[in-house]
Amino acid sequence: MKSIDLNCDLGESFGAFVVGQDELILQHITSANIACGYHAGDHNVMAKAVQMAKKKGVSIGAHPGFPDLLGFGRRVIETEPDDIYHFVVYQIGALQGFCKCNNVRLNHVKPHGALYNMAAKDPILAEAIAKAVYDIDPSLILYGLSGSELTKAGAKIGLKIANEVFADRTYQPDGTLTPRTNENALIHETDKAIDQVLSMVKTGTVKAVDGTTVSIQADTICVHGDGPKGLEFTQTLRKSLVAEGIQLGG
Amino acid sequence: MKSIDLNCDLGESFGAFVVGQDELILQHITSANIACGYHAGDHNVMAKAVQMAKKKGVSIGAHPGFPDLLGFGRRVIETEPDDIYHFVVYQIGALQGFCKCNNVRLNHVKPHGALYNMAAKDPILAEAIAKAVYDIDPSLILYGLSGSELTKAGAKIGLKIANEVFADRTYQPDGTLTPRTNENALIHETDKAIDQVLSMVKTGTVKAVDGTTVSIQADTICVHGDGPKGLEFTQTLRKSLVAEGIQLGG
Amino acid sequence: MKSIDLNCDLGESFGAFVVGQDELILQHITSANIACGYHAGDHNVMAKAVQMAKKKGVSIGAHPGFPDLLGFGRRVIETEPDDIYHFVVYQIGALQGFCKCNNVRLNHVKPHGALYNMAAKDPILAEAIAKAVYDIDPSLILYGLSGSELTKAGAKIGLKIANEVFADRTYQPDGTLTPRTNENALIHETDKAIDQVLSMVKTGTVKAVDGTTVSIQADTICVHGDGPKGLEFTQTLRKSLVAEGIQLGG
Amino acid sequence: MKSIDLNCDLGESFGAFVVGQDELILQHITSANIACGYHAGDHNVMAKAVQMAKKKGVSIGAHPGFPDLLGFGRRVIETEPDDIYHFVVYQIGALQGFCKCNNVRLNHVKPHGALYNMAAKDPILAEAIAKAVYDIDPSLILYGLSGSELTKAGAKIGLKIANEVFADRTYQPDGTLTPRTNENALIHETDKAIDQVLSMVKTGTVKAVDGTTVSIQADTICVHGDGPKGLEFTQTLRKSLVAEGIQLGG
Repeated sequence: MKSIDLNCDLGESFGAFVVGQDELILQHITSANIACGYHAGDHNVMAKAVQMAKKKGVSIGAHPGFPDLLGFGRRVIETEPDDIYHFVVYQIGALQGFCKCNNVRLNHVKPHGALYNMAAKDPILAEAIAKAVYDIDPSLILYGLSGSELTKAGAKIGLKIANEVFADRTYQPDGTLTPRTNENALIHETDKAIDQVLSMVKTGTVKAVDGTTVSIQADTICVHGDGPKGLEFTQTLRKSLVAEGIQLGG
Repeated sequence: MKSIDLNCDLGESFGAFVVGQDELILQHITSANIACGYHAGDHNVMAKAVQMAKKKGVSIGAHPGFPDLLGFGRRVIETEPDDIYHFVVYQIGALQGFCKCNNVRLNHVKPHGALYNMAAKDPILAEAIAKAVYDIDPSLILYGLSGSELTKAGAKIGLKIANEVFADRTYQPDGTLTPRTNENALIHETDKAIDQVLSMVKTGTVKAVDGTTVSIQADTICVHGDGPKGLEFTQTLRKSLVAEGIQLGG
Repeated sequence: MKSIDLNCDLGESFGAFVVGQDELILQHITSANIACGYHAGDHNVMAKAVQMAKKKGVSIGAHPGFPDLLGFGRRVIETEPDDIYHFVVYQIGALQGFCKCNNVRLNHVKPHGALYNMAAKDPILAEAIAKAVYDIDPSLILYGLSGSELTKAGAKIGLKIANEVFADRTYQPDGTLTPRTNENALIHETDKAIDQVLSMVKTGTVKAVDGTTVSIQADTICVHGDGPKGLEFTQTLRKSLVAEGIQLGG
Repeated sequence: MKSIDLNCDLGESFGAFVVGQDELILQHITSANIACGYHAGDHNVMAKAVQMAKKKGVSIGAHPGFPDLLGFGRRVIETEPDDIYHFVVYQIGALQGFCKCNNVRLNHVKPHGALYNMAAKDPILAEAIAKAVYDIDPSLILYGLSGSELTKAGAKIGLKIANEVFADRTYQPDGTLTPRTNENALIHETDKAIDQVLSMVKTGTVKAVDGTTVSIQADTICVHGDGPKGLEFTQTLRKSLVAEGIQLGG
């Protein structure tokens, strides 16, 4: 029986700055990637996110990013691989602290924003991240873009990996995502987005922008909880998956 | 046989801002309190500090402080006990990450600056810190001012505690430190400072500013590595302790 | 003819963290207090806020706060008066930079959060703030709680001051605000809040919680733009003031 | 009569983190570039730096950098030109605040670190910085690498510019600096460094690494105050310039 994980970024508020609808989206997902205080999140937000995820039975993951609150971790910052290794360790460790206090296991790590995108393409950076995850706990699952340098580096070092796919992004004939700068990068229609997911999960293929069929490994789908649309789409997607007999879970 | 621990704050540099002489002081101490990125230290500095301490066989402790790089954690910030609990968990967790990657055990926790001083007097704050330490790992040793609310809270929750004493501070008849605002708060002569330590370690007493003899529990002595004087004093103190047949170690 | 100023905090977003409805509230107010990057706001947000306020003809003020993004400037941080003087200068100067680039005058300064509350009661802190404002530009208007130490310090040093009153807070027989910890601190009914404002503006008095009538100087009213309720109340208040023939403006 | 300006970065301390020997270097330079709180410096440090520079009769300049305390402004951060325009305005404005309070004129602006290097090569970024400086005060002098895109952009918009040269860096046949990654990038001998400066000031030429003579405009020389060597070199350089009858000053 086919199964798929639904993951969402969580705990992105910071102090009085509220982001997302953590409590609502937790009802519909199977894995939460919790921000660790570098690009978003703070120690109070992290504590609450871990408690809420545990209560809902949602798997807890660390979501490390660049030390860049102002840029929300979305900007490339010139950084040595060692530095990246260290800040990934720091952020995972911090979140593990809250997991221990709540007697719950840390399940996975998914890099955030610019770190995620850079690690998808740069094998040296990917290796630094994979090594940080492995060194802190080799049983952690590494989430990365399906077929990317990050998942390759994770597999190579001996980590369990989860290939991430997107419902609302189009794919190129070589299996990579269409860059956001392209006109046809996004899928705006709910039906099309859900069809794309079902195809990826059921047949392991996706139809690229040029009409060709491309192989793709889909272990987990990225959904969004920071808007009414994201919440609604996640509910619809979940129902469609269940209707097709696909099991939900990491 | 009497024994005493020599502890020193470590890893207080931040990016290009260099503080202290970590490598030098590590040769003379038995425990290092490593800053965790909130009042000082960063992920690169922490990684290096853990590696150096491990290499020298020095016990590694977390040194959590207020989130206040500008004030170096020395300023009182109005903070709820829950918030303090969370930031202590965060900082310990982050340092534990580096301990795991280096296969070395985290030994203790010593609050820094304003947090240390507030926790010495405020039982609610002391309890929040003790609970954070206990919840993340009940085998951690809690360092606090000898006879303070913090060590009391630690003992009460079931933690092993280390009563800290000072070589260069005078004591009041009630066993508390003379406030720094008082003229006679500091001991400037090396001989007097060393005599005070030897008395505390060997007889469990200290001569207060009024001449009376006061009981004091001395498990660990705070030394300083951020100046040539601190380094020199630590060496002299160490020799004096060894000469008296006192064992060094945590 | 009576006149009154309606002031509102503006530019409190930070990077991707969005706070308030700046564009909407600007249509209803006469003065904007723009955050300066210490407790909220960033250089991009400030630039936009200054441009929008200028476009709407709303007076521009600096809204300096403690260096505490995590606490949104609402927490007391132990700080020397000199330090406060310096950070008020820094924040006013930064905002003046944007005013110069947009050929618009900086009109006033209103301290934020904990700084505002502390300055209302502490004459030394109030003097430090008033001096910072005066030294950078003696033509700036200092906004402070009506009858507070801050407005006193401003008047004493030679600044024009604006006594601020609140629509939704009750007053004590001595003219101070009822502490938020008291049950009856807030006025929840729109009618009552508007009646209180009209009384303060037209007669220079307010009915205290014990029923006595107290003198109060009302130069400016604090309104809120960070919720649908605040926006609606401001519109209603504005209409009521206009209906009573009261002129709006700083 | 030939004249040359000696400029040095100043006010790079942050809170308890002390950098440089501001008081000592001020005795030997004619212009100070004061950090503005983004990559280094804080409001207290800035206030003191402005006061000390004024006292010594040293020209005061703003030294804006990327918002990156952790990286000391030395790292490239992916940033839109508008964002850079805004943060340059912010930092200049903040420093102008201290100038106003001390009745002293802000003389110049010199970008720091990665911002300086990027602006030397990237005309769009250079224009954003030049425009920020011009918009806040067209009488400010823009300091940039001699012959760079930054000085070109400054001249184009109508700013007075100062072409900066280096004593301890070698030059390429095209007049650019030898990249630091090259073996022969630095001049280690004091004599050679001083000869290079004298040649640049007196003849407007420099001998490139391949032995050819290259034209170079030298208005200001960058010296360093953050080490005993920098201090000593600056004294020697100053004496050599005076001995050659070259006037010192901006």
